[in-house]
Amino acid sequence: MKYYIGIDLGGTNIKGAVVSETGEILRQSSCPTRAEAGAAAVTESIANMINDLAAGREITGVGMGCPGTVDDAGGTVVYACNLGWMHYDVRAALREKTGFSVRLVNDANAAALAEVKAGCAKGAQSAVVVTLGTGVGGGVVLDGKLLTGYSGAASELGHMVIVADGEPCACGRRGCFEAYASATALIRMTKAAMEKHPESAMHSIAAENGGVDGRTAFLAQQQGDAAGSAVVGEYVHYLSIGVANIVNIFFPEVVAVSGGVSNQGENLLAPLRQAVSQQEYGAAYTTRHPRILRCILGNDAGVIGAALFAEE
Amino acid sequence: MKYYIGIDLGGTNIKGAVVSETGEILRQSSCPTRAEAGAAAVTESIANMINDLAAGREITGVGMGCPGTVDDAGGTVVYACNLGWMHYDVRAALREKTGFSVRLVNDANAAALAEVKAGCAKGAQSAVVVTLGTGVGGGVVLDGKLLTGYSGAASELGHMVIVADGEPCACGRRGCFEAYASATALIRMTKAAMEKHPESAMHSIAAENGGVDGRTAFLAQQQGDAAGSAVVGEYVHYLSIGVANIVNIFFPEVVAVSGGVSNQGENLLAPLRQAVSQQEYGAAYTTRHPRILRCILGNDAGVIGAALFAEE
Repeated sequence: MKYYIGIDLGGTNIKGAVVSETGEILRQSSCPTRAEAGAAAVTESIANMINDLAAGREITGVGMGCPGTVDDAGGTVVYACNLGWMHYDVRAALREKTGFSVRLVNDANAAALAEVKAGCAKGAQSAVVVTLGTGVGGGVVLDGKLLTGYSGAASELGHMVIVADGEPCACGRRGCFEAYASATALIRMTKAAMEKHPESAMHSIAAENGGVDGRTAFLAQQQGDAAGSAVVGEYVHYLSIGVANIVNIFFPEVVAVSGGVSNQGENLLAPLRQAVSQQEYGAAYTTRHPRILRCILGNDAGVIGAALFAEE
Repeated sequence: MKYYIGIDLGGTNIKGAVVSETGEILRQSSCPTRAEAGAAAVTESIANMINDLAAGREITGVGMGCPGTVDDAGGTVVYACNLGWMHYDVRAALREKTGFSVRLVNDANAAALAEVKAGCAKGAQSAVVVTLGTGVGGGVVLDGKLLTGYSGAASELGHMVIVADGEPCACGRRGCFEAYASATALIRMTKAAMEKHPESAMHSIAAENGGVDGRTAFLAQQQGDAAGSAVVGEYVHYLSIGVANIVNIFFPEVVAVSGGVSNQGENLLAPLRQAVSQQEYGAAYTTRHPRILRCILGNDAGVIGAALFAEE
């Protein structure tokens, strides 16, 4: 059995783990990122974590998931907004302090790889993971390999326009999938419906839970609230358009959703499957339809995926 | 030098060629498809063409581009609407008559592969070909390999929704890229503008050319016609949304357009490049931008791609 170290470099915390080639976590570690201390200090923290995790065990390789755009070929973080890093040669810095030549991967891509190698899509020929959080991220794994483009960039599924000239997106485009399927978008839809429907149960639900969040409309729907149901319907409609686009572009074996909104489980997945199946191109002529699943590795996906990326 | 036979099976004609491993055509052949005579008769015509083309030359392999959905692993045409074929084991039938185990590929995919191996995107690490014809088809080539999904289906880029709840598409969805970027869509936009603008030069241009077609608005624009310019602007706007989606999903080295509308050349490509560059995710942080090109192999792309698919 081979062992790898996976690092998940986030804006708030650095997490690390020793991971077996089958995706099992043997040891974990975590520390605050303290990005404001600068790249050298953050790199020092990462190097210390790697050296601690590696102590007394043979480690075959190290991978690190980073936010933003990475260049694994060149060994640099090209741009990571919430770390304030630009064109930073983190591989050289870590090699000097650990002896390892650390492989670099986008953090959302690492999580997607983990789900395919050791999670909900294990064994699938191809899978697309869609993360429904503050934004919409994701990763595409084809024949066991992450899809990265000519620029080394990860697939930016959230920045596929599904509503031409629609809601403005942080990326500068209008009508992105992210602007309709993120938790942020769901909250926007919920608030708009609450304004129109003072009678809706969403008001009392939000008050009880300390404000409107991604659960408000789903909870209202479960109480039989018409306005809440309509919000869920609207959200699933747009989510299904983006997922069906992914299906028609990749025809993957699995589409897996993760992130806060995916915690709704079958309340989300059942209507989503129904809506996507009606939009799948050529569905009548094949028995091989994509399975729409929920990710299962949760917060561990980042370190597991980073470790298994080092295996590639 | 190795030689392959490529067959391009269309609804109207069957074309065949002997193609070198570098994509050069050495000999060509063509005959009517006569789909109405049935699958066995069409297969007989294909087999005769293969045997004629193979005579006196060592052929390493044979590939065939087919309309619709093919299953290369199983050797069958799963569904080809304009041939009336469904789950037809064409490989077994052709093996019996020619001795070759013919590789099967979707025809639009074959054309895309040809452009990457021997055409406008030669040498590119990755490329996406978008065909702007009656519909919108295409193919995705990553690291020299065609992207086909779990079901064996080709990437259906034309059936990616870019306008949620927009114009109805033949596939059953609403607002597909095809419904906004095909020649058919361009003609619809042209006719709508002509109705609103009786003063437009598009009326006389259409009358001179025997009717409205994909060139009408472009010709009017070249004469300084405002309504014609607006139609071209509207068409390029939607085309750029779909192309920018493709860029943000694949970050390919090349996006190449083919089909009738691509004959507009720089009149189409220059504004398209401008519009796409503004929608490319993370463009500010990379110098590796996709090149947007026009395909160069024309009608030969089908046989060349089919032949080179046999090389895979």
